Amino acid sequence: MVPTPSDILGVVMSQKSDVAALFDKLRAGSRDGDGVTRDTYGPGEEFAHRLIAAHAENMGLETRRDHAANLFMTLPGADRNAPCLMTGSHLDSVANGGNFDGAAGVIAGLVAIGSLQRLGLRPRCDVTAAAIRAEESVWFEVSYIGSRSAFGVLPAGALEAKRVDTGRTLAEHMAECGAAIDDVRAGKASLEAGSIKAWVELHIEQAPQLVAASLPVAVGTGVPGNFRYPQVKIVGEYAHVGLPRRFRRDAVLAASEFAVGLDEIWKKSDASARPMAFTIGRFHTDPKEHALTKVAGALTLSLDVRAYDKVHLAELESAVLELARDVGQRRGVKFHLGARTSADVAPSHPDVFAKLIDSAKMLGIPAMPLASPASHDTATFTVAGVPSAMLFVRNANGSHNPREAMEIDDFLQAAAVLTYWLAAEATSTAT
Amino acid sequence: MVPTPSDILGVVMSQKSDVAALFDKLRAGSRDGDGVTRDTYGPGEEFAHRLIAAHAENMGLETRRDHAANLFMTLPGADRNAPCLMTGSHLDSVANGGNFDGAAGVIAGLVAIGSLQRLGLRPRCDVTAAAIRAEESVWFEVSYIGSRSAFGVLPAGALEAKRVDTGRTLAEHMAECGAAIDDVRAGKASLEAGSIKAWVELHIEQAPQLVAASLPVAVGTGVPGNFRYPQVKIVGEYAHVGLPRRFRRDAVLAASEFAVGLDEIWKKSDASARPMAFTIGRFHTDPKEHALTKVAGALTLSLDVRAYDKVHLAELESAVLELARDVGQRRGVKFHLGARTSADVAPSHPDVFAKLIDSAKMLGIPAMPLASPASHDTATFTVAGVPSAMLFVRNANGSHNPREAMEIDDFLQAAAVLTYWLAAEATSTAT
Repeated sequence: MVPTPSDILGVVMSQKSDVAALFDKLRAGSRDGDGVTRDTYGPGEEFAHRLIAAHAENMGLETRRDHAANLFMTLPGADRNAPCLMTGSHLDSVANGGNFDGAAGVIAGLVAIGSLQRLGLRPRCDVTAAAIRAEESVWFEVSYIGSRSAFGVLPAGALEAKRVDTGRTLAEHMAECGAAIDDVRAGKASLEAGSIKAWVELHIEQAPQLVAASLPVAVGTGVPGNFRYPQVKIVGEYAHVGLPRRFRRDAVLAASEFAVGLDEIWKKSDASARPMAFTIGRFHTDPKEHALTKVAGALTLSLDVRAYDKVHLAELESAVLELARDVGQRRGVKFHLGARTSADVAPSHPDVFAKLIDSAKMLGIPAMPLASPASHDTATFTVAGVPSAMLFVRNANGSHNPREAMEIDDFLQAAAVLTYWLAAEATSTAT
Repeated sequence: MVPTPSDILGVVMSQKSDVAALFDKLRAGSRDGDGVTRDTYGPGEEFAHRLIAAHAENMGLETRRDHAANLFMTLPGADRNAPCLMTGSHLDSVANGGNFDGAAGVIAGLVAIGSLQRLGLRPRCDVTAAAIRAEESVWFEVSYIGSRSAFGVLPAGALEAKRVDTGRTLAEHMAECGAAIDDVRAGKASLEAGSIKAWVELHIEQAPQLVAASLPVAVGTGVPGNFRYPQVKIVGEYAHVGLPRRFRRDAVLAASEFAVGLDEIWKKSDASARPMAFTIGRFHTDPKEHALTKVAGALTLSLDVRAYDKVHLAELESAVLELARDVGQRRGVKFHLGARTSADVAPSHPDVFAKLIDSAKMLGIPAMPLASPASHDTATFTVAGVPSAMLFVRNANGSHNPREAMEIDDFLQAAAVLTYWLAAEATSTAT
């Protein structure tokens, strides 16, 4: 019943030109300069959802949109009531981003399911490829909107978050894409942990760790949790260039000392082998007050801090807040931290992780375990209690930029690992 | 012949309500929100020049505008060919600045000359109050435009500098205010060091050093020189939040380390009693690239560094460039320094300084020597070879903001020192 490794490699690799064509269609419909823009709950993401849904329907899959306009594409199993196997990722992108971040995981799901179809494999349970909405938190500055809505755990207030470019609310944008806002607000769930046997998300790596290791594929060890302060305002006092040092309350120096202090914390954390990351994406004085000879009285910054275990994350937040207090006192400025959001840590499920490692081994595809500090919807599945893990594909030039450089051959190797795992699980008699 | 100290105090103080009214008129005509805007070679500065010229004509003074539209208001002396005594300051302001920065020195000149008139004193040489153009370098990012034009030493290229708000050139703006651009370009001089016996500029203090010392008046020890890099661009690489620390080329961290390094240099310099100042007025990531989860690949900043002696200034510039190189190497970023401008240091003339200290003493007005790190047109006079010094007036809330808080009584005390000095010099037989 279980196809051989060479059957699986053969049927996956045979789809190379179809896969390349589908990625090209996706790029062509969302092109923006030299990159792509698939805006969350906007025309870009909508286009991608229509394209992928049409593709799945052509494959003969059952398609379903939930109350948050997430898309589920299912190959029915022998037992429709058995917990399903699910794979997928998101279809939205950052502005002027790359074509593969997110989309690769959705298309890999369709490749894997298409391979099961071609192999004539009738799964025991449903096998579903999911196209999740709204993973890129740059648009609404809220994490995991689509997957949290699916599990009915979108935080209160998120529907009122404004998209950074349009200034319109998430509720408005979702409604335009056919979502049932009242259901989202009421915390309705379209997914339940008990009805999903396992979840695997394939994604391009956002760092060059696989490039450095000369490996095409990795299995993720988990998704970090985070805490975020998207709008920290440091307020000192604007002053004339003639003000001596001892009188200054310089927001630029306070912010700089804060940033350098955060980097020290990271350096120490790395040195003690506790992986983390912090990112300041925005860091700016007020353009209305800009002058060559004026001491800056205010600076605004965004802060994202992430780590792989809960205790570490809590320690980091204490350290960050203490640093802000210290710098504030020393520099005579106030740190207004503004709104805070957070996401729980999500370690990979040991069984799913081990089976993916085994699948790669059976196929003769070299793969390594990888800690990748990016956020993924997989975190929502893990936190909800679904046994979950991730596959990463080698990618040369980072992510969230037009120069992402995933090779289709690397992608197909990762898709083969996914297919092997699905085939093994879908034919297994273990529950 | 020389009036007594009490004559001078009496006649200066008697002008209190007239002075307050003139300041009020100036404010009323250039009000902008809660502050004033007297834009350099624009409607705001023009208004102030017209108001002050009309006031001087009412006083019976000779008024003259030079090729750069600087305004000179003269009480003729017995010998029209003898080197004159000159005082004054500028009339432009920063955007939404205070009413006194600059204007106080011009009005003080008129108060002093008015006092000589009221005392019936016929000066041996011309006594001139000057309203200099374009001192606030925030507008064109060029120092001392008006005074350098007067001495025929405006740097090449300055006429092509663009005003930061209008984007139009200095030449266009000057021409609109009646300047003779060809003469400015040709380096014509309307002032010559040999025909000015001494120059004194009265100005509000831009720091709270006089407030801290509870003194109304100070005599400046000199104007610092500076070097400026108005548009430093730090270029690293934009990257996904998932990029580990060792791969990052983060422009925010590089800029922060640079700023903190500059502050360390200042701290050391202060500790060894070598006064200086550095100011970063602009410090910002690119709004077009802003995202909560993107490592910043570029940051732009402006840098102004000043000190009181030439050797110190050269040492500081070496240290700044070395710091940029170090940080650049360590962080994998490039510092593009962009255009550089500079101004020479200008220590006060010992004789003029001593005479101003004596004048205050004779009047019983408590005064202290003061190092004030701001720039002033006095630097141009000093560098040109005119014996020069400055008077500072106590001012509570700094300068370049609407909350400047000079008391008219403090102003009149400083104006009395200026008047005493002018009276003594104008009646002196020494050459």
